[in-house]
Amino acid sequence: MAMVCLSDFEAYAKKYLPKIAWDYFAAGADDCTTRDENILAYKRIRFRPRMLRDVSVMDIRTKILGSEISFPVGIAPTGFHQLAWPDGEKSTARAARAMNTCYIASTYATCTLEEISAAAPGGLRWFQLYIHRNRAASQQLVRRAEALGFRGLVLTADLPYTGKRRDDVRNGFRLPPHMKVKNLERAFEVCTVSPLDPSVTWNDIYWLRSLTSLPIIIKGILTREDAELAVKHGVQGIIVSNHGGRQLDEGPATIDALVEVVEAVRGRVEVYVDGGVRKGSDVLKALALGAKCVFIGRPALWGLAYKGAEGLQDVLRILQDEFRLSMALAGCASVSEIGQHLVQVSKL
Amino acid sequence: MAMVCLSDFEAYAKKYLPKIAWDYFAAGADDCTTRDENILAYKRIRFRPRMLRDVSVMDIRTKILGSEISFPVGIAPTGFHQLAWPDGEKSTARAARAMNTCYIASTYATCTLEEISAAAPGGLRWFQLYIHRNRAASQQLVRRAEALGFRGLVLTADLPYTGKRRDDVRNGFRLPPHMKVKNLERAFEVCTVSPLDPSVTWNDIYWLRSLTSLPIIIKGILTREDAELAVKHGVQGIIVSNHGGRQLDEGPATIDALVEVVEAVRGRVEVYVDGGVRKGSDVLKALALGAKCVFIGRPALWGLAYKGAEGLQDVLRILQDEFRLSMALAGCASVSEIGQHLVQVSKL
Amino acid sequence: MAMVCLSDFEAYAKKYLPKIAWDYFAAGADDCTTRDENILAYKRIRFRPRMLRDVSVMDIRTKILGSEISFPVGIAPTGFHQLAWPDGEKSTARAARAMNTCYIASTYATCTLEEISAAAPGGLRWFQLYIHRNRAASQQLVRRAEALGFRGLVLTADLPYTGKRRDDVRNGFRLPPHMKVKNLERAFEVCTVSPLDPSVTWNDIYWLRSLTSLPIIIKGILTREDAELAVKHGVQGIIVSNHGGRQLDEGPATIDALVEVVEAVRGRVEVYVDGGVRKGSDVLKALALGAKCVFIGRPALWGLAYKGAEGLQDVLRILQDEFRLSMALAGCASVSEIGQHLVQVSKL
Amino acid sequence: MAMVCLSDFEAYAKKYLPKIAWDYFAAGADDCTTRDENILAYKRIRFRPRMLRDVSVMDIRTKILGSEISFPVGIAPTGFHQLAWPDGEKSTARAARAMNTCYIASTYATCTLEEISAAAPGGLRWFQLYIHRNRAASQQLVRRAEALGFRGLVLTADLPYTGKRRDDVRNGFRLPPHMKVKNLERAFEVCTVSPLDPSVTWNDIYWLRSLTSLPIIIKGILTREDAELAVKHGVQGIIVSNHGGRQLDEGPATIDALVEVVEAVRGRVEVYVDGGVRKGSDVLKALALGAKCVFIGRPALWGLAYKGAEGLQDVLRILQDEFRLSMALAGCASVSEIGQHLVQVSKL
Repeated sequence: MAMVCLSDFEAYAKKYLPKIAWDYFAAGADDCTTRDENILAYKRIRFRPRMLRDVSVMDIRTKILGSEISFPVGIAPTGFHQLAWPDGEKSTARAARAMNTCYIASTYATCTLEEISAAAPGGLRWFQLYIHRNRAASQQLVRRAEALGFRGLVLTADLPYTGKRRDDVRNGFRLPPHMKVKNLERAFEVCTVSPLDPSVTWNDIYWLRSLTSLPIIIKGILTREDAELAVKHGVQGIIVSNHGGRQLDEGPATIDALVEVVEAVRGRVEVYVDGGVRKGSDVLKALALGAKCVFIGRPALWGLAYKGAEGLQDVLRILQDEFRLSMALAGCASVSEIGQHLVQVSKL
Repeated sequence: MAMVCLSDFEAYAKKYLPKIAWDYFAAGADDCTTRDENILAYKRIRFRPRMLRDVSVMDIRTKILGSEISFPVGIAPTGFHQLAWPDGEKSTARAARAMNTCYIASTYATCTLEEISAAAPGGLRWFQLYIHRNRAASQQLVRRAEALGFRGLVLTADLPYTGKRRDDVRNGFRLPPHMKVKNLERAFEVCTVSPLDPSVTWNDIYWLRSLTSLPIIIKGILTREDAELAVKHGVQGIIVSNHGGRQLDEGPATIDALVEVVEAVRGRVEVYVDGGVRKGSDVLKALALGAKCVFIGRPALWGLAYKGAEGLQDVLRILQDEFRLSMALAGCASVSEIGQHLVQVSKL
Repeated sequence: MAMVCLSDFEAYAKKYLPKIAWDYFAAGADDCTTRDENILAYKRIRFRPRMLRDVSVMDIRTKILGSEISFPVGIAPTGFHQLAWPDGEKSTARAARAMNTCYIASTYATCTLEEISAAAPGGLRWFQLYIHRNRAASQQLVRRAEALGFRGLVLTADLPYTGKRRDDVRNGFRLPPHMKVKNLERAFEVCTVSPLDPSVTWNDIYWLRSLTSLPIIIKGILTREDAELAVKHGVQGIIVSNHGGRQLDEGPATIDALVEVVEAVRGRVEVYVDGGVRKGSDVLKALALGAKCVFIGRPALWGLAYKGAEGLQDVLRILQDEFRLSMALAGCASVSEIGQHLVQVSKL
Repeated sequence: MAMVCLSDFEAYAKKYLPKIAWDYFAAGADDCTTRDENILAYKRIRFRPRMLRDVSVMDIRTKILGSEISFPVGIAPTGFHQLAWPDGEKSTARAARAMNTCYIASTYATCTLEEISAAAPGGLRWFQLYIHRNRAASQQLVRRAEALGFRGLVLTADLPYTGKRRDDVRNGFRLPPHMKVKNLERAFEVCTVSPLDPSVTWNDIYWLRSLTSLPIIIKGILTREDAELAVKHGVQGIIVSNHGGRQLDEGPATIDALVEVVEAVRGRVEVYVDGGVRKGSDVLKALALGAKCVFIGRPALWGLAYKGAEGLQDVLRILQDEFRLSMALAGCASVSEIGQHLVQVSKL
């Protein structure tokens, strides 16, 4: 079977992953409306392509927080990569480095930060953080990440509690016994309630700031009001995200929320987006609407499920080729030529 | 089979209820457009969730006409509960009390008001009234309800005649011989036409007012004009309702009409809504748009059909958990924090 | 099988009519978009029903061009009724008279005008006319109709040529040998081209006017510009029609065009509409938007196909009951209370 | 099987063409959204037909760049006609001449320009050009076309690189060994990269201008900005085109882009459109929105696949009959009467 586009990897993963793992990765909250809207919203955006521009030499590189990446697509933080491939996050790290892009490792990785770092020394990586009831545990994770050369701290803001994913409830989803959330093992006692702290507020950004000199990126912002607060509290970046539609169902599609957030931010910090990216042209749309970079979640897991690091590289390479081609066909030879003039958003 | 969300109860009820009972409960008027629109209209409303608010302590209680309920979901008046479960409305009353919420008993109950009261002493209950051609019968019902401790009188305004529900016509629907509309037995002679009075007008509110000191809630309002008339005629509350889409087909979805009614009422009386609530987040949307409380109709019947009072409690508990979670994920720790800023209504 | 709504008659007719006859009646031009839009457009209109009005005494009668009919639904002109029922238009005339409404007999009837008149003496009938190349033939038809007591002349304006109905082309549709277009037999020589005159213009209204003192109703108007011309040329009524979607495909649905025509006409002549009426509430919508009466085409044929005059009466009686009920549920006790305030039109 | 409308030819071609050829002709880029939108966008346009105009004498002729054609439908440039019919472009040329319309021969023809000319001497033909890295090759093609009596030069602007057509990738599409891109054989060395030059800019129009006195028509324009540039650089015509949805997916449908381009051009040059034309009434819509003529791509190939030149004539004749009929039913007797008043565009 030829792997021509990302749907091919999705079909493969659905066929070959254990049902419980597939369901976990595929899950959206409640009716999965937002999960699906993330994709549909991209389809409602129309390009306004320009012709007869010299696109013989294409430059698709960009920089995020000062680090160059080969093209504006990184790996979003998702948990439990060993559910997709035995090597788990080590493979993810290798693929990201091979493709010269950024990998945001999740707190819920099934490999330790040390293993991830060792698997792909020198790769550009950010670390995704939940703030725990046990603040010392969070503090320790931040310090480990910084020490290991992670170059950004991504604070997830949209999970005070876990969203209701019906299939996970039906399946009684839990990690198989041989997998562990390794980064938390050392820091946590067994706890009967969620270890995540639902009392976190904007002021905790200042606390985080006091722990580390890493740039702080806040993930999960969907409104202009929160975007304004994020800037005000001194973050370096915002990831417009609805957690892949796994938290509050029937919020906005991320590409729709991006427009609002970009407007509010007015260039003061970098804005990224995740959710619903399935084609290179989706990346072009996100950049046209003001994103500096997009991050992919489920497609990365499909790539892992296909062939580990190699499969994830395949996914990234397809996105890269599609992005370059769509840029050229829209009349842009470099990322700096991409702008809002390239798209027309039809309101539903 | 795990009962994870309300659709699970719907599937169960459809499978295990006699067809004629299922069809009766499921029926909508004519093409069932409004019945289905009630649900679809909720889906067109998008949340604007806010992040990093302290949602560690959640308070989902509210008050309706001065009585506290555990969360803003009550039981709408529907007829013939014995079609769903042998104990009928007695089970409904028990479940509502157990969950500390309000149950609106229907004139078309298959238990007497006395049986309902005795089944769950002290529960918060309102009584739903149709005005009959035989006014003495209506008067007697009102006085019985008041004497039995019902705390509100819900006048249904949208049924001068019964809507055309095709399946009921095809099935020749009628109650099985062992069930009775018990509250009317004692008051009515056999009548060949409908006992309901199609000549009722707004002035009859004054007549009702003269019979009872109970608060009067009018049910079935869908326009700003009628909302204004309701306030002018001195009701204490309005239930925005289209009778579950069982009366005039192709009127507005109730959640759409709610916006218009709330605007017209300007806080002078409490406004509630029924129809189409299937998830806890629907409750959040209704409250964001100005409802003080929602009432569920068919889902309550599905709960009864599943396991009587226990099944209905399951339904209410799921809605309660979902409502609390969606509040938290939208950034609200108490009902008082819910407001219109939480939603974006897209016009179709 | 219970005949509960008009779709039941449609299903019956589809099952029992010869395919070639069903296809002919069902046919729309080209992709049948307009045929189907006629129905869908009604569904986009929402009622704003009013409550607590005295609807104990319902009066659904109306007048068209001075003649009272029992409710505002007449029979639109359609051809070849013998394809649906052996007695053909004689049955149609009987049913219309029995229900005390108006029947517009088609030039393409399979019974003579004399047979139609004799079948239901005293019934309210209008005669539908195409202007023929042979003007003498048209003139003779007009005079016969007038002499036979037809009370209106309906000039069809939208058929200079016959629309392309693919199924008729595939089926090689033609009348069975034992049926005849009887009203034309006596007047026409065999002609190899269509006998209809595609050179007809507005000035021919004056010519018609000179032939008869009957009121002239023009059928097939879809724009404000043509409505203005119709009034200017002295017609007494306008039927907003797209010929059931059988002529130019992808013109407006008739209920949408009605709004524009009613606005242009400003009450100077009566406006009617046909196409897409399938429920009593569709009639209410059409009246709310300014129609004085609606005419049904295919549903009348389904009624004939079911049981001749009796079947057509069933169809009319269902529409009548549904119309009366929807009026009452919307808060109107008489046709004079119906107005634009009853509906909300959502633009697609 | 009766060939009644263009879909019949599509069904035939899908059934009888080799899968790899069908897939190649049917292919759209990526998700095929734009390919399908080209068709759907026509359906969103509603006619405003006018009645009682004299349409007894119909004149459907028009002129493009001074040459009269029998009706405003020409043959768009598409490659590899031998995949559809053994005689390839020779049949296309014969059919176009027989129907007295314009055929735009593609650079990627499987017959030489000389063969095409000889097959139908005197036919109205334009030549479609890609600018090659090897400018001498392009120059030679232009000069050959001019010498052979081609009367226009169509520069395709939307293919700096080939779009990603998934099925072609899966099929490993390539021409069968017995077919050749004959016009390029003589001019090109074997090259490992695409022979097309992605560095072409607007200035190359001036270069083309220097090579030939033929009118230059630019194909692939979708925005007002590029339309303005085209006029400014001295082209004689613009074909609004998205390459049948085969290049950048999720750009505008061509009929939507036409409105914008026509507005920008303000009559300074002729504007044509291709993509999505499937019925005669589509042609009428395009003309109402300002196109001087439309060109058909895939339908021409279906006609060839059916019966070569004869099949293509069938396709053209059907379109011609449908166009004439829809003009008449909309109230236009000649092309000069077609205008924007005939249509109402609903925004999605």
